[in-house]
Amino acid sequence: MDMISDLNTSSRFLLGPGPSMVPPRVLRAMASPLVGHLDPEFLQLMQEEQTLLRLVFQTDNELTLALPGTGTSGMEAALCNFIEPGDAVLVASMGFFGERLAEIAGRYGAQVERLERPWGETFDPAEIEAALKARKYKLLALVHAETSTGALQTGIPEIASAAHAQGALVVLDTVTSLGGLPVEIDHWDVDVAYSAAQKSLSCPPGLAPITVSERARQALRQRKTPVANWYLDLNGLEKYWEAPHAYHHTAPISLHYALREGLRIVEEEGLEPRFARHRAFAEMLWEGLENLDLPLLIPLAQRLPTLSTPQIPPSIDDAAVRRRLLDEYNIEIAAGFGPLKGKIWRIGLMGHSSRREHVRLLLGALEDILASA
Amino acid sequence: MDMISDLNTSSRFLLGPGPSMVPPRVLRAMASPLVGHLDPEFLQLMQEEQTLLRLVFQTDNELTLALPGTGTSGMEAALCNFIEPGDAVLVASMGFFGERLAEIAGRYGAQVERLERPWGETFDPAEIEAALKARKYKLLALVHAETSTGALQTGIPEIASAAHAQGALVVLDTVTSLGGLPVEIDHWDVDVAYSAAQKSLSCPPGLAPITVSERARQALRQRKTPVANWYLDLNGLEKYWEAPHAYHHTAPISLHYALREGLRIVEEEGLEPRFARHRAFAEMLWEGLENLDLPLLIPLAQRLPTLSTPQIPPSIDDAAVRRRLLDEYNIEIAAGFGPLKGKIWRIGLMGHSSRREHVRLLLGALEDILASA
Repeated sequence: MDMISDLNTSSRFLLGPGPSMVPPRVLRAMASPLVGHLDPEFLQLMQEEQTLLRLVFQTDNELTLALPGTGTSGMEAALCNFIEPGDAVLVASMGFFGERLAEIAGRYGAQVERLERPWGETFDPAEIEAALKARKYKLLALVHAETSTGALQTGIPEIASAAHAQGALVVLDTVTSLGGLPVEIDHWDVDVAYSAAQKSLSCPPGLAPITVSERARQALRQRKTPVANWYLDLNGLEKYWEAPHAYHHTAPISLHYALREGLRIVEEEGLEPRFARHRAFAEMLWEGLENLDLPLLIPLAQRLPTLSTPQIPPSIDDAAVRRRLLDEYNIEIAAGFGPLKGKIWRIGLMGHSSRREHVRLLLGALEDILASA
Repeated sequence: MDMISDLNTSSRFLLGPGPSMVPPRVLRAMASPLVGHLDPEFLQLMQEEQTLLRLVFQTDNELTLALPGTGTSGMEAALCNFIEPGDAVLVASMGFFGERLAEIAGRYGAQVERLERPWGETFDPAEIEAALKARKYKLLALVHAETSTGALQTGIPEIASAAHAQGALVVLDTVTSLGGLPVEIDHWDVDVAYSAAQKSLSCPPGLAPITVSERARQALRQRKTPVANWYLDLNGLEKYWEAPHAYHHTAPISLHYALREGLRIVEEEGLEPRFARHRAFAEMLWEGLENLDLPLLIPLAQRLPTLSTPQIPPSIDDAAVRRRLLDEYNIEIAAGFGPLKGKIWRIGLMGHSSRREHVRLLLGALEDILASA
């Protein structure tokens, strides 16, 4: 067999939609020798992680933990635990991850109703409220920060209130918002929210934070059928995270070391200063992009500070520019896809990646490349 | 909120059923700065990981990869991709993980037939062959190395041959065998085998190696219904691992760095020397345990070299001894559970944990504690 060499990867500036750059403190924590997944010391770390997760989710929800999978496992857990075959589910979709919500809900036998906005737009909350009045749903699922477009759905409290008035649970995807802009689970009265470690929390991918309201736990207890997914069954997961700490799976110890350290960094910085930092460097990026004649797809009021999506003029070769950014400057940004393929770039400034020097470097590199294209 | 301190865990000797101790090289590789999950350099690493996984599974199966979850996600993937509602599934269970196979198969709507041996025993292959002749099954699932008892199921080639003669696929749990004793997927003609990174491969938990035969891929392609699990759907996973490398989930980059390095260590040591090492230190442990009047539960011919299960005399306080091992010697071993609760300990010598000094230390510590109990 061919010789497989020492790990020798390039030093990338990760300015795409995630993973973001991981702070050295987090990498160091992750490299600590392992203790067992039932070691009293590890159970203590899990509790601390829960405390820190409640802080970033701005919630008192007891059932708040990190699932042993990536963000998509969070999405699947948020759906499969609350859907039984035949349940009516409303998905408000404004991009790729809204479509994935609908797709996954369908796998669990839900009767899925899709409410759609074109990629790049967002919903007027009144539109979702009207749909909720038209039919009784078990659950409403929507995306707070759409990673495929860079759009932020506002009006979550009004939408949640309308859903609850009809008896529906609210599932919110906060993958690209948690830790980078306000996510106020209790204040907004969201029932289930999930995220991913590798975005604005700046940890390595492989864990999905999730928080579940008392209302949703009640619904879980009232199921008539077992959860149709063993690995992501919150009944088993909560018995591991809470007393009696019964074995469910072997937790990804090292990733929990990392997430706990990443959350400590969030807590030290403080949520408000952290959100302000993400906002300030996003604004610096936006101004620079406009100056390069790369206007932003999303109007200011719905624009994510964590993920910016400049439009690519037809004269520019999308793939060639990204390739040169990677090969010549070690900068990763991402392509658009679906209906936005070739039309936008996706530039993430999340967590440790949200820094002045990264914005300046990227703008300088783009300037060089566009001038010589 | 209470101050949450720097990560400051104890230096444990991990001699339980996993996680095993992670070599410094693997920890170091894991702490490397991240590249993106679609970076050409990462796609290259994934290919190398596949090559190394084929080596330890002793297979040429093209569809060989590491799932983004722990060993249980491997078990669930091995079942959910091949089961459709109403399918007849035979589970040969000789312990906790056999029972979990049956439980998970049931979640996917299988008509599950359980063939059972008491915990600690194994099957005569003829018994499974007879059951396969009695009814037509879509799939036979069984455990090669039962982590709850320390028993090794022998006769896998005969069992697989009998299953194929009846048209059934063979799913084999190799969680506690892969990398520590022979697992010969192609020679044995097993269709689906899965494992976990944190056992005899000595990597951090969070990835589940899996390999799938051409026969099983054919069955996957012939499904009438979508796989009832999105995250573990091999159709989506193979499109990410193979060209066109389409986005499915954000791979746990750091864990892949670790697994690739751990597999390189396996390749450098060589499979046969590695198996011999596991055997030699297991024998050293067994002799020492017998000398301490802690006879092994499993007869020699079915005994796992990776996980030993001494019986605890009634005079000994199971929990107190384990607590003293942990508190006074920083040694983790595990309790028995289910029908073996309080009756056995589970001592793992896997991967980097399988070393002379660990055996000597554990035997010495046990001797001290039992003398002063």
